[in-house]
Amino acid sequence: MAADKSISSKQLSRLPIYLKLLYSLKDKGIEKTSAPQIAKALQQNEEQVRKDLQVVSSHIGKPKSGRVVVDLIDDIETFLGYHDATSTIIVGVGHLGGAFMNYSGFSEFGLNILAGFDVDENLVGGKINNKEIFHVDSLEEYIVNHQVHLAILVTPTDVAQNIANRLVKSGIKAIWNFVPIQLRVPEDVIVENVNLASSLAVLSHKLKLNLEKEEKL
Amino acid sequence: MAADKSISSKQLSRLPIYLKLLYSLKDKGIEKTSAPQIAKALQQNEEQVRKDLQVVSSHIGKPKSGRVVVDLIDDIETFLGYHDATSTIIVGVGHLGGAFMNYSGFSEFGLNILAGFDVDENLVGGKINNKEIFHVDSLEEYIVNHQVHLAILVTPTDVAQNIANRLVKSGIKAIWNFVPIQLRVPEDVIVENVNLASSLAVLSHKLKLNLEKEEKL
Repeated sequence: MAADKSISSKQLSRLPIYLKLLYSLKDKGIEKTSAPQIAKALQQNEEQVRKDLQVVSSHIGKPKSGRVVVDLIDDIETFLGYHDATSTIIVGVGHLGGAFMNYSGFSEFGLNILAGFDVDENLVGGKINNKEIFHVDSLEEYIVNHQVHLAILVTPTDVAQNIANRLVKSGIKAIWNFVPIQLRVPEDVIVENVNLASSLAVLSHKLKLNLEKEEKL
Repeated sequence: MAADKSISSKQLSRLPIYLKLLYSLKDKGIEKTSAPQIAKALQQNEEQVRKDLQVVSSHIGKPKSGRVVVDLIDDIETFLGYHDATSTIIVGVGHLGGAFMNYSGFSEFGLNILAGFDVDENLVGGKINNKEIFHVDSLEEYIVNHQVHLAILVTPTDVAQNIANRLVKSGIKAIWNFVPIQLRVPEDVIVENVNLASSLAVLSHKLKLNLEKEEKL
């Protein structure tokens, strides 16, 4: 494996896309592939694909002979840490948090969702998708006891920073943040933001403009 | 309202964040606010907040007197098209698609999810969250009959482009795409991509590196 430091977030974000393609090649019984083939299938730049794969995989092989699909899959999965399932908790079991607890797809990406946390007495003590929901009061104890390093944050906006502080104090090193605020965390804590409301705002405003334009025509 | 064309995607993506804050001010009974106050609460640049709001709202008021919270809310909601609920369908009722059908939060953002579509005979004919699931075969007919312009795409990767083609042919003007591929669509069709796998890949790789670093210390 090449030096980890040379990979950018953009490159990282493309790896799951290669992985999806490689899984489908494997399913079709295709044993070998190459950067040009991958680039063509994904309509991406060949040189970019080659560079991305070089960072991740030592299975470069001779250009003519191609790469072995299962080796490439293994290299990318290892690189992304998919093999060691990352124990995760979900804080906030509202609409979206509950949906995430129900969503089994995260396990494909190496996430093992252990439990959910909320303050709603109607939820606490219950289960979703066979995962327990605890009161937020027991957050710190749970994180320490289960050595959790990653948390998915889906709380209401006004409590998000406070919860983030408590997560960090208890040993959380990475927060996947779905709350539309800029969290303040220590430098060694990773925050990755997904703002569905913002994404949808861009989409629905553009759609509105286009439909208005059409009406005028 | 100022000219729509002058707003960038970055500006658009910040509007839901202001909106969240404004809702909470309103809930607290606060009637007036200002760009500096909003900037401070969100830890954002004051000039940026001012510019964002100027594009969206005519309720600028005299700098000293501040803006009326409910007017600002109304202006942003109108600008984002939240008032006219956008009829939407979900294509692919697998893990994530099913979770989205269960997620009532989208209605806050002006989305009205009408129905889901899938090929799985175990799903077709059933309901999630009181919304019917139809066979993908009836996609075109449904879109035309219900004048749907927006679709949420959550299908398996290998069928996504084909479904996108069918959506566009039937009159869909905007696709919220959760499938990790670059869709090819006509110029007048808007695609907004959300790639959860990529976001998680960035996060879990950085976490892995940090944990390895700690082990070495």
